Amino acid sequence: MARLSEQGIRLSSMSPSFLNSNSTSHTWPFSAVAELIDNASDPGVCAKQIWIDVVKIDDQLCLTFTDNGSGMTPNKLHKMLSFGFTEKGTGKASQQAIGLYGNGFKSGSMRLGRDALIFTKNGGCQTVGLLSQTYLQNIKAQAVIVPIVPFNQQTTLRSLVVTEDSEASLAAILQHSIIKSQEEILTHFNSIPSKKGTKILIWNIRRAKDGKTEIDFDTDSTDFRLPEIHFEELKQGLRNNGSLRPEQNIPDMYYSLRAYLSILYLKPRTQVILRGKKVLAKLVSKSLTHIEHDVYKPQFSKEKVKVTFGVNPKKKEHYGIMMYHRNRLIKAYEKVGCQLKASGQRVGIGVIGIIECNFLKPAHNKQDFEYTKEYRLTLGALGLKLNDYWREVTEKRAREREFQALDKEDSEDQEEADVGPVWLQCEECLKWRSVPPCHYKVMPENWSCSQNPNPRYRSCSSPEEAEESGEQLTPSYQKSHKKLQRLSESH
Amino acid sequence: MARLSEQGIRLSSMSPSFLNSNSTSHTWPFSAVAELIDNASDPGVCAKQIWIDVVKIDDQLCLTFTDNGSGMTPNKLHKMLSFGFTEKGTGKASQQAIGLYGNGFKSGSMRLGRDALIFTKNGGCQTVGLLSQTYLQNIKAQAVIVPIVPFNQQTTLRSLVVTEDSEASLAAILQHSIIKSQEEILTHFNSIPSKKGTKILIWNIRRAKDGKTEIDFDTDSTDFRLPEIHFEELKQGLRNNGSLRPEQNIPDMYYSLRAYLSILYLKPRTQVILRGKKVLAKLVSKSLTHIEHDVYKPQFSKEKVKVTFGVNPKKKEHYGIMMYHRNRLIKAYEKVGCQLKASGQRVGIGVIGIIECNFLKPAHNKQDFEYTKEYRLTLGALGLKLNDYWREVTEKRAREREFQALDKEDSEDQEEADVGPVWLQCEECLKWRSVPPCHYKVMPENWSCSQNPNPRYRSCSSPEEAEESGEQLTPSYQKSHKKLQRLSESH
Repeated sequence: MARLSEQGIRLSSMSPSFLNSNSTSHTWPFSAVAELIDNASDPGVCAKQIWIDVVKIDDQLCLTFTDNGSGMTPNKLHKMLSFGFTEKGTGKASQQAIGLYGNGFKSGSMRLGRDALIFTKNGGCQTVGLLSQTYLQNIKAQAVIVPIVPFNQQTTLRSLVVTEDSEASLAAILQHSIIKSQEEILTHFNSIPSKKGTKILIWNIRRAKDGKTEIDFDTDSTDFRLPEIHFEELKQGLRNNGSLRPEQNIPDMYYSLRAYLSILYLKPRTQVILRGKKVLAKLVSKSLTHIEHDVYKPQFSKEKVKVTFGVNPKKKEHYGIMMYHRNRLIKAYEKVGCQLKASGQRVGIGVIGIIECNFLKPAHNKQDFEYTKEYRLTLGALGLKLNDYWREVTEKRAREREFQALDKEDSEDQEEADVGPVWLQCEECLKWRSVPPCHYKVMPENWSCSQNPNPRYRSCSSPEEAEESGEQLTPSYQKSHKKLQRLSESH
Repeated sequence: MARLSEQGIRLSSMSPSFLNSNSTSHTWPFSAVAELIDNASDPGVCAKQIWIDVVKIDDQLCLTFTDNGSGMTPNKLHKMLSFGFTEKGTGKASQQAIGLYGNGFKSGSMRLGRDALIFTKNGGCQTVGLLSQTYLQNIKAQAVIVPIVPFNQQTTLRSLVVTEDSEASLAAILQHSIIKSQEEILTHFNSIPSKKGTKILIWNIRRAKDGKTEIDFDTDSTDFRLPEIHFEELKQGLRNNGSLRPEQNIPDMYYSLRAYLSILYLKPRTQVILRGKKVLAKLVSKSLTHIEHDVYKPQFSKEKVKVTFGVNPKKKEHYGIMMYHRNRLIKAYEKVGCQLKASGQRVGIGVIGIIECNFLKPAHNKQDFEYTKEYRLTLGALGLKLNDYWREVTEKRAREREFQALDKEDSEDQEEADVGPVWLQCEECLKWRSVPPCHYKVMPENWSCSQNPNPRYRSCSSPEEAEESGEQLTPSYQKSHKKLQRLSESH
């Protein structure tokens, strides 16, 4: 018989196999990794750093995610191991939180591997929890059981806190997880570099049918990559005649975790250290040429938001709108307006747009928005704006070419002149500062405000260089073709 | 304190708000509708018909899904209202079942509306169950509670079966659902046309921020449509200069449920009657011209599958691969091979491919495949095959044009001559039969084997016209360019 609620009515139950079902919304493993970083970065945790590594424990490859955020109480850990519990949707935290659905840890971790341990300490208590498909299968569980064991962090002995289920939970973890002794548990707690923080350990990581891990850890020892598909794998004996490539030239964020993480947040709040090497955050908008901005005021919202357009100077074949939600990238390279035309004319090619759409709702896996009327209106409006921008840029270029013909200037020089300042993030305060484009020949990997050539921003106490916001927002360019159109209409 | 399992270890819990979280994987409402049809069509239910309607109950718009399948016991209904329980993945049923994850009803129904009632009868027992976000909110539930009430179907009085929770459940349904009396419950049972079957009633259906229902029920009284985005909604006061359109010319399956359902299954097992009008199933492959087929043998699978290629004669701008999994459409118009080139050359435009990829795994929402190495290999191989096909067709056309120049034939006639037989589905046995293209001037809406002009297949007892399968599969065309290539290499 099913379990009854306080109301004397049966409860919906959850089969252990739902852990896998639920994780299938992340079709792509990097989407699962992003969930774990979101959690470390969100209010209530606010980690300054998160370290992502791949390690061997007892000959098994494991992924680890270690942060120096605020850690969790046993009760909070139980919510993290449950479904749909989030405090992020209410109150002040809702202003900034990326998490909406109380599902990121479950869907993310179970997408990457079959089993996960969470070690967390909050200064007073350190707690270990287990979410494991292997364990539930071994004991033939009918429901999702989550062993949780709290230890006292204050005493030197770090003794077990005895609760209703802590001893049974400890026995389950030692018997069914990758950790075989209490000492090993304490070693993991100690490997968290601060007094507070959380470490997630994932094992039985996903493998392809050929037995190799889904993620390629070997090609680049400082990255997680999707393995390359080799031509020979597609068709044995077929000779590559040069005109065909197994995979098209896709943006590197799709196969390099480092590239994806570098643009995952508009303004990163947490530094990611992937396999010992810091991920250099890139402000997408700062790497473009011909930058202009427009303003979008959805008719269904009070918000007015900035839309930045520019041309991708390096890879013209990667274009479209980068759509963020609460600082987090949701959709990348979404084609709109004239970019959608299959007409063969190369219109809008190379144009990147950037917008933060807090007025839309992300889907389950945070890789898409709900396909609502509001979303469709937004795409439609962005299409019109991109068309505007495209006309503006092409007209400007045409004018420039006339001048160039007079001056016999090289068009390459013209491109160079369009490059804006370089944006660097301070190691200490995580603020973004601009330096002139020619100041550094090689971009410094470690940089702080104290190195700023501009004395005004040479201290972490200086505020970040301001961007316009709210009511002051106006488009950065006069839409000249419209002015002309209006003129011709009035005559 | 959390609930403990038999093992004395706490259980993972589920917040009522997870019902919404879980449903957000269906970004698009038709994806949610498809889940409910899958359930009716899957082994264990095997409905011959499903009726989809929109009705008013107490001034509230409700969606109904009524099938004449085998119905459910109270215990099976409880599993349907729980998470991750499915018998479809094991044994014989796994050969044909679309459902994999035990999540379709929850994610689908809660995507369309906030509340759902399920009426089901299996010949011996008729049972009503409630899955309702409004109810759980009203009683401030901490977990997902699912009232379930069985009635005896055999006795004339149809009396309540007294179980541990049936009376409390009945009280909850009458107090918190759209149904206010036991008589109304019985009326719903009676509205199921057979002795066995299931009716799903969904209310508080999703609305956009403008208050209108997400689905447009008015524009076509025999369809569910996504509302059109009007140009004026995008930019007030902007004059449509004719060169811009708010939404591009997208395939009709994206905004018309009738169009989507007509291609949702490769070979429909269940007839769908949408708002009183039968959905005419279209075999995608039968509506193409220049049809050829190729064979794909993935290196990671023993299966050998047919890939059908053809040219979409009506809408050349809608092209790509239609990827099915166990008879069910997962991805539509997926571009591969030369279709991916943004080069401005119109290569591969208009080419449709059809494949059933049972060796891949669909994602949570059944609108995508897991982005595994196997999936990427499949896309790569399909790209090569499509390139082959494209060369074959263009070479053939070039040869034909030479002949035409001699014969002064009209190229339009040539296109006509390529049209294959018309495929019709028998009303009675649901088998597909071919008739010559000119046999009917207007396609008959109701058709059965007895009307077949071909006497060989004029009875429902005749088997379906055979398709090649398994080991016999060979490509339908000689890859002439390869032959040439090989020849030139050997010289």
